[in-house]
Amino acid sequence: MRHFLGIQDSEFIRGKIPMTKSEIRILALAKARIAEDDIIVDVGAGTGSLSIEAALLAPYGKVYSIEREPEGIDLIQANSKKFAVPNLTAIAGSAPEALSGLPSCDVVFIGGSGGKLDQIIHSCDQLLKPNGRMIITAVTIETLFQALKLMQSKSHYEVEAFSAQIARINQIASYNMLQALNPINIIACSKGGQYA
Amino acid sequence: MRHFLGIQDSEFIRGKIPMTKSEIRILALAKARIAEDDIIVDVGAGTGSLSIEAALLAPYGKVYSIEREPEGIDLIQANSKKFAVPNLTAIAGSAPEALSGLPSCDVVFIGGSGGKLDQIIHSCDQLLKPNGRMIITAVTIETLFQALKLMQSKSHYEVEAFSAQIARINQIASYNMLQALNPINIIACSKGGQYA
Amino acid sequence: MRHFLGIQDSEFIRGKIPMTKSEIRILALAKARIAEDDIIVDVGAGTGSLSIEAALLAPYGKVYSIEREPEGIDLIQANSKKFAVPNLTAIAGSAPEALSGLPSCDVVFIGGSGGKLDQIIHSCDQLLKPNGRMIITAVTIETLFQALKLMQSKSHYEVEAFSAQIARINQIASYNMLQALNPINIIACSKGGQYA
Amino acid sequence: MRHFLGIQDSEFIRGKIPMTKSEIRILALAKARIAEDDIIVDVGAGTGSLSIEAALLAPYGKVYSIEREPEGIDLIQANSKKFAVPNLTAIAGSAPEALSGLPSCDVVFIGGSGGKLDQIIHSCDQLLKPNGRMIITAVTIETLFQALKLMQSKSHYEVEAFSAQIARINQIASYNMLQALNPINIIACSKGGQYA
Repeated sequence: MRHFLGIQDSEFIRGKIPMTKSEIRILALAKARIAEDDIIVDVGAGTGSLSIEAALLAPYGKVYSIEREPEGIDLIQANSKKFAVPNLTAIAGSAPEALSGLPSCDVVFIGGSGGKLDQIIHSCDQLLKPNGRMIITAVTIETLFQALKLMQSKSHYEVEAFSAQIARINQIASYNMLQALNPINIIACSKGGQYA
Repeated sequence: MRHFLGIQDSEFIRGKIPMTKSEIRILALAKARIAEDDIIVDVGAGTGSLSIEAALLAPYGKVYSIEREPEGIDLIQANSKKFAVPNLTAIAGSAPEALSGLPSCDVVFIGGSGGKLDQIIHSCDQLLKPNGRMIITAVTIETLFQALKLMQSKSHYEVEAFSAQIARINQIASYNMLQALNPINIIACSKGGQYA
Repeated sequence: MRHFLGIQDSEFIRGKIPMTKSEIRILALAKARIAEDDIIVDVGAGTGSLSIEAALLAPYGKVYSIEREPEGIDLIQANSKKFAVPNLTAIAGSAPEALSGLPSCDVVFIGGSGGKLDQIIHSCDQLLKPNGRMIITAVTIETLFQALKLMQSKSHYEVEAFSAQIARINQIASYNMLQALNPINIIACSKGGQYA
Repeated sequence: MRHFLGIQDSEFIRGKIPMTKSEIRILALAKARIAEDDIIVDVGAGTGSLSIEAALLAPYGKVYSIEREPEGIDLIQANSKKFAVPNLTAIAGSAPEALSGLPSCDVVFIGGSGGKLDQIIHSCDQLLKPNGRMIITAVTIETLFQALKLMQSKSHYEVEAFSAQIARINQIASYNMLQALNPINIIACSKGGQYA
């Protein structure tokens, strides 16, 4: 059965680690154009919400979820179990070091960089197969700037970027209140120029 | 082969009719949770961009695209041809009248109402199967208010809503400029309470 | 000495009551075009942040701050004292009842309605002098819809409206993070058509 | 008589040069905390809308409007005439060169940099008096990043920044449509740490 994008946030087991919200996950996953047998690397996987959805979209593929916080690793494993995802491996450690030994991949998500964005992008570029997609989600101005600069300088990538500001509309008694989520910038890059 | 959400806007044949933008289409389609054999009705189909993507997601299903502007009907048919979509029927006319005679459906998109939102929602509710999804995209305050009020009053629907404000980040020479798309409100309703 | 718009949020004494944020206060106050001797009514004054700034802009005028929560009244009085504002009177009670007995005024702010927006707007319209300004800030879809509908139906008012979505850019270590404030809708109405 | 912030956009004489929109002008002017006798420099003045409002706020002061496009200089002069602003001098040229010879100032607005943001900020910092305010409006990711980096590295400045996304609500027949303005980032810097 097909997996539908956009599991509700409340269905994930969550700790204190920030989680990518449902609407942003939908946009990032759509831009990743995941095929059923894709190999996927998720750098800075957090609670694993993006990894879990990616794994469900690639039942014959494999997801490697890199996360440096022990709490994150626990959450990724708890969520893998909850969603019965067999094709996900959580890797405790920091990129780029934790990337070594991984196979060539079709999709890379970069959601956290710990100050090493250049090296992480460089390593991910080497891992990424021709026609692969690199999806960077930036919550800081620095990551947004640096990711654009780096990726737009690589002539073998097509780069598309946008900022998404979502406000949830919550019913409270007989009123609907607007509640803003923090704006997220998505930089979607396609290797080989065959994107879209 | 799987259809990926989010055909680029530039790939559609466009006229003077406003088109739902790629990022919004992705969100609306994700919320619609389209299965391969779903029957789908698109009210106010415009250029047909949402209908085309829905039809690609439901290759064993069927899409009925209702549009009252003759230019829209032409664009829907031109786009159906361009994307080689065999399972889409364009219906010239206005809802709710143009809905009569359509089969029960799994998904309804409402993108335009011509001032008859109440009647359209009433008719679509009757067409929609149990566990069906009704996705309303609102660009006016009036449609947003009315859709929330109506759908939240129906106890057999779960209603989720949010506003999406997307700003494209466009590279111009060595700068990246922010260009806002108009904010869109998405009201995603699931019949029967089994949504999500 | 001239009062500058936009006291920092952190300078106000705050309780659990939501406070209009600095950027929104600036926009609402600018649209109110307050003269030094204006009479001003603030309906749903909350912590009094808007009232205080209005009072500082109208040192020869007067501000009446209506608030139904006792905690709000306490905060308004504490903030009046902190900012040494002598020309502000806090009125415990709910509009429209609490409006009775007030003098004709130049500016009305409506930030809260307790479900009685129609009656409040009607009473405020009667209080408002020719060329007066009524500034409604709406955090719910219902208030936005209703305020637009009512005010646009009054031919003796010019109505201007916009939604403001502010994201603070906060420096955390060597990064700048985007933190969204909830979107606010401002409906700025001018009586007599001499607005702007 | 006091000048009120926020002249309507439609009142300015406009050409093909992009104009800072009314809501953004209000926010930038409020953050500048202009006193009646302030000396103000506006770098990249465009149509002069910000300069004109600054000049009206400082009737005993002076505004220097630097603009490199001849069309801009014409518009600044035409708007000065229309708004009867005697205390504004338009300077044809590019910063930082065009800044030489200007007196010490209380407020600097930087709205355009022509790729020389570092040098412009350096020169403006030298012109700016203690307790002066430097307000940078950024429409590109590069300017936002660079302005934050530079200004946050200067220990004698307090820096406050936010992104403002305004959507106008326009009445069209019996509907109110949301029309987005492009998001603008405002970086408000106060010399000497006495900001706020």
